Amino acid sequence: MGKAIKDQLGRVIEREDAPQPAVILVRPQLGENIGAACRGMLNFGLTELRLVAPRDGWPNPAADAMAAGAVELIETAKLFETVEEAVADLSYVLAATARRRELEIPVVGTNVVGREMRAKVSSGVGILFGPEKAGLTNADVVMADAILTYPVNPAFQSLNLAQAVNVFAFLWAQSNFEGEGMDVPDYFEGVRSDVAPREDLTRLFDHMEEELDEAGFFFPAAKKHLMQQNIRAPLTRAQMSQQEVRTFRGIIKALAKGRGKARGP
Amino acid sequence: MGKAIKDQLGRVIEREDAPQPAVILVRPQLGENIGAACRGMLNFGLTELRLVAPRDGWPNPAADAMAAGAVELIETAKLFETVEEAVADLSYVLAATARRRELEIPVVGTNVVGREMRAKVSSGVGILFGPEKAGLTNADVVMADAILTYPVNPAFQSLNLAQAVNVFAFLWAQSNFEGEGMDVPDYFEGVRSDVAPREDLTRLFDHMEEELDEAGFFFPAAKKHLMQQNIRAPLTRAQMSQQEVRTFRGIIKALAKGRGKARGP
Repeated sequence: MGKAIKDQLGRVIEREDAPQPAVILVRPQLGENIGAACRGMLNFGLTELRLVAPRDGWPNPAADAMAAGAVELIETAKLFETVEEAVADLSYVLAATARRRELEIPVVGTNVVGREMRAKVSSGVGILFGPEKAGLTNADVVMADAILTYPVNPAFQSLNLAQAVNVFAFLWAQSNFEGEGMDVPDYFEGVRSDVAPREDLTRLFDHMEEELDEAGFFFPAAKKHLMQQNIRAPLTRAQMSQQEVRTFRGIIKALAKGRGKARGP
Repeated sequence: MGKAIKDQLGRVIEREDAPQPAVILVRPQLGENIGAACRGMLNFGLTELRLVAPRDGWPNPAADAMAAGAVELIETAKLFETVEEAVADLSYVLAATARRRELEIPVVGTNVVGREMRAKVSSGVGILFGPEKAGLTNADVVMADAILTYPVNPAFQSLNLAQAVNVFAFLWAQSNFEGEGMDVPDYFEGVRSDVAPREDLTRLFDHMEEELDEAGFFFPAAKKHLMQQNIRAPLTRAQMSQQEVRTFRGIIKALAKGRGKARGP
C-alpha cells in the first residue's frame, strides 16, 4: 500500500497504488468524448483506460485536446480490437447500459456498485461503455457479469458518453467512504472545531435581552417569554463560532450605542 | 401528484409534477458548458435552470447547440443579475465547491445530499455552481446553507462545470430510491415547513448592515466584507422561520432606536 491520497477535506480518497477498475470504451466514436471521459476519470482518481476499436483510430488529436490535464490517461490507454481481448485479464466485468435487455443478467444498483467493485477489485474488474449512438450490443453485454444502470429520465435517457463515465468514476470514489461514518446522519462532521461554548451564547442572550428590555422591545410583557424563544432558538441552532458570537456582541453594542438617551415610551 | 415516471427497469423515477431543486449557474463562461449541463440535468429529470450573469450574455447559440435534446431547459431558463436574486424564493441553498473555505459553513456529503434536498424541496431548494475558471467566491458561498463537495482527486480536482452538474443531478435521481429497502434512518422527519424564503433573509441583512453602517460598526472598512460574512453565515445556517426573521427585524429596530442622535466617532 502506498501513500494515502487525501482530498481537500482531509478524507482519504485512495491509496496511490491501490488496484482500480478499468474503464473500457467500446467502439467510441468521438475523440472529444474520449478526452472528456479521461477528465472525469482522473477527477475521481481513475487512471486505467482501455479502448476497443475506436472509430476514428488511435491516437486521436481530438481526444488529446479535450483531455486537457488528464492527457496522461490518453498516453497510457490500452488499445484492443475486440471486447474479448479487452476483458481477458479481468474477473468481474460490468456493462453500463440504460436499456433493459432480454438477457438473463443481474442488475447492479448505483448504490452498491462501488462496494461491489471494491470487494472484487484485487482480482481485476472493469466496466464497459458502449458507442455514443447505439450503445452496447447484446453480444457485448453478454460478456459482462452484471448490468449497471443509472436512474435516468426515460424521456431523455441517452447519457453523453463522458458523463456516463463521469458518474461511474464518482461512484467509485464515493464508495471509499461507505461504512466510514460519512453515511451516517452526522453530516456536519469535521466542520467546525471552534463552536462557541454555550456560556458565550448565554452571555450574548443576556446582553441582547438586557438591551432589548431597555428599548421597550418586550411588549406586551406577557409575550416576553415567547419573544425570547424566537431570539434564542435560531441563534442556538446556528452553532456559532466564538468569533461569530463576538461579532454579534459587537452588533448589539453598536446598535444600542446612545440609544438610551432617546428612549421612547 | 401527477403520474409516476418509471425508468426502463420499472422503478419509479419521479412524479411528473414533483418539486425539484433549481440548478443555479453563477457567472458561467462557456455556452457549451451551459448546454452540456442542461443535458446532464434532463438525463436525471431536473429541468429548472437559473443563470446568474452568464459571461457571454443570454441567449447563447453555443448553449443551444450543445443542449441538443435538452433545449427546453435553455428556453425556460431564468436569468438573474445577482446570486441574491437567483435564490430569493428558496429556503435552502447549497454551494458546490471543491475548495475548503475558512467560512463557518457545514459540509454535506454526497451520500446524504439527495435525501437532504428531498426533505426540504417543498419549501424551495437550489444549488450554486461557480464559473469554470475560478469557482464560487466566498461572497457567493456565504449565501448558501451548506457546501456540497465531491470526493475528488486532489491532484486533478477541477471538475468540468457540466460534469459537476451531472453528478449532482445523478445524486438527486438516485436519492429517490433510498430508504426503499435500504433501511435508512428517517432522520429528516420533523423538518420545519415554514423556513423563511431567502429574500426575507436578504432584507434582514440589508436592514442590519445599514444600521450597522450608521453605527460605524464596520471598522476598519477593509474588514467590512469579512464582518458581513460573520453576520450572514450563522443567520443563514439557522434556517430561520418567517416569525424568527420578523423577530430579528424587530430586534434591530429596537436596538437602533434613537441611536443616531448620540452617534460616536
